[in-house]
Amino acid sequence: MYQSFWREMGSQADHAVPGWQSISYFSDVSNVCWFMEPEFASEVRRLHNLVGNAVASEDHFIIVGNGSTQLIQAALYALSPADAPDPISVVSEPPYYSGYPALTNFLRSPLYRWAGDAKSFQGDTYIEFVCYPNNPDGLMNEAVLNSPNGKTIHDLAYYWPQYTAITHTADHDIMLFTVSKSTGHAGTRLGWALVKDEAVAKKMTKFIELNTIGVSKDSQLRAAKILKAVSDGYEIPNPHKEHKLFDFGRQILSRRWYELREAVKDSGIFTLPDSQLAPCKFSGKMTENFPGFAWLKCEKEGADCESLLRDHKIVVRSGVLFGAGPSYARVSMLDADATFDLFVERLRTIN
Amino acid sequence: MYQSFWREMGSQADHAVPGWQSISYFSDVSNVCWFMEPEFASEVRRLHNLVGNAVASEDHFIIVGNGSTQLIQAALYALSPADAPDPISVVSEPPYYSGYPALTNFLRSPLYRWAGDAKSFQGDTYIEFVCYPNNPDGLMNEAVLNSPNGKTIHDLAYYWPQYTAITHTADHDIMLFTVSKSTGHAGTRLGWALVKDEAVAKKMTKFIELNTIGVSKDSQLRAAKILKAVSDGYEIPNPHKEHKLFDFGRQILSRRWYELREAVKDSGIFTLPDSQLAPCKFSGKMTENFPGFAWLKCEKEGADCESLLRDHKIVVRSGVLFGAGPSYARVSMLDADATFDLFVERLRTIN
Repeated sequence: MYQSFWREMGSQADHAVPGWQSISYFSDVSNVCWFMEPEFASEVRRLHNLVGNAVASEDHFIIVGNGSTQLIQAALYALSPADAPDPISVVSEPPYYSGYPALTNFLRSPLYRWAGDAKSFQGDTYIEFVCYPNNPDGLMNEAVLNSPNGKTIHDLAYYWPQYTAITHTADHDIMLFTVSKSTGHAGTRLGWALVKDEAVAKKMTKFIELNTIGVSKDSQLRAAKILKAVSDGYEIPNPHKEHKLFDFGRQILSRRWYELREAVKDSGIFTLPDSQLAPCKFSGKMTENFPGFAWLKCEKEGADCESLLRDHKIVVRSGVLFGAGPSYARVSMLDADATFDLFVERLRTIN
Repeated sequence: MYQSFWREMGSQADHAVPGWQSISYFSDVSNVCWFMEPEFASEVRRLHNLVGNAVASEDHFIIVGNGSTQLIQAALYALSPADAPDPISVVSEPPYYSGYPALTNFLRSPLYRWAGDAKSFQGDTYIEFVCYPNNPDGLMNEAVLNSPNGKTIHDLAYYWPQYTAITHTADHDIMLFTVSKSTGHAGTRLGWALVKDEAVAKKMTKFIELNTIGVSKDSQLRAAKILKAVSDGYEIPNPHKEHKLFDFGRQILSRRWYELREAVKDSGIFTLPDSQLAPCKFSGKMTENFPGFAWLKCEKEGADCESLLRDHKIVVRSGVLFGAGPSYARVSMLDADATFDLFVERLRTIN
């Protein structure tokens, strides 16, 4: 979806690297996250300061990861007690991102174990994933549990102005972001965590050291250029209002959401979560939410939403994977234009 | 160590990428390893064909990883039975790379468990790491165990002509390589596996998908340029014999090994493994080995080699981590010139 924006950007976001540069494992040995390029870290802080979506002052540690996927695992590792007799329970309120159970359990580590629905969890020691705007349904979730022994990981991958109103400057213990969702560059495989506690930041760094001995410098330096171009688009006076990524994203998503809601009406058998309206601190306007995913519910009794959509050649992920029923399915709103148009066209005819 | 080579290369190994390129998660959906850039894969095959160090024909799958560190974990995951009541034992002949126990055990997965010395292992179900030239001692190790239920992972990170004679074209089930050791670009965090069995290749891909949803495209495309420059250096006629990476590496390492052996003699309390001589198929000459690490033994009775060297400001890793005694320590031979010179100078004075 974002490719045409970056095509129009011109050379500002281009990246070039001579063969002899960025050879070493190390980036900044004075930093807790010793494999993080200082340019990348400083553009991350600058962008958060511009958007106001998260506190990214110097007393928050930044940890760079191979996508927020790796950072999720690093955070689980960092928050799990090393000497507990039983795995710590990992929970989230459904519908939750299908990656949380998969990433928690795939190596069956006895350090942590997926325990499902946060609402029905009994006990006071846990790790809770809180995602807002929530993947898959776009809602502004809050933590369900509250115990002094509990820990939370806030997944804020979509907390950017193209998707939602920036209602507050987030200030949680661990906040995860990713280049993939902020600028569209999924192929860089780059995410970052903002972390309050130094011991947690060190343990997350240790995980990434053991898992991959750091993160591609090529991606970090390129991402620094890309984040810089986004900030420059807003901070450097620009009479034509060009090169404003969040405005571009909102414009496309607003049209897509309009088309999707029309198609859902035409079909008559699906519903979507209601849209939300809130004042956005970044734009200064009342702002509708445009989630990166459509969380479709098929209202036919006993329907399997995934099978039904697959029969109509629409690739989706079943609601079951998100802790919801088979009447739900998740569809990406961020695909290329042609793919999105085909999806809407096919959806309209299902009844 | 390699930086000056790449500085002299000129623009051939430079890499540039426009802001709009390589945005997607996907590289080649027709490939088992769907996140691998075809250019990278084809330069990997070309370089192996040139050097003759490993079979890399089209019937071997290539899996790209975030360094060979991630590929080691992917291979453990792929070779572990999913339904066994007990973890599979992971073994290696000492001295072995200290990463093997650390990577096997850090999440305490019940799928696999470090079981130490391959020579004393009892049983017929296991995963054996075989590394040649061996990290840390440079020897051409072979598998110690041999059972139809056993699996091997061949770590060939250093099986390149600057380090050792290329005595044969390796053709094992799983062979691991890394850009870090072949060209020096550790900061790209890029490795690759050559894998015979399709099911294993698929399961390794699945691990990388779960762990990091693929591998930086920026690094892959840059590494493709770098590997191409290495192959071009040998395949394109070049009267000045410039830009030959393996010759450059051998020249530096030969001088360093000479200096190190002299310093060890001067000191009088250390020993090193004997040098090996073998015919190299790549150069056509009898070739001495120049390992990427020095495996120092302190011959003083009861000596702790690591502490002794640290007291003289030489940073090493204790032999204990490699399954050997405290009289051993490992020192890198691939550091920057100034660091290496300082190491040799300090070593000479210890007695």
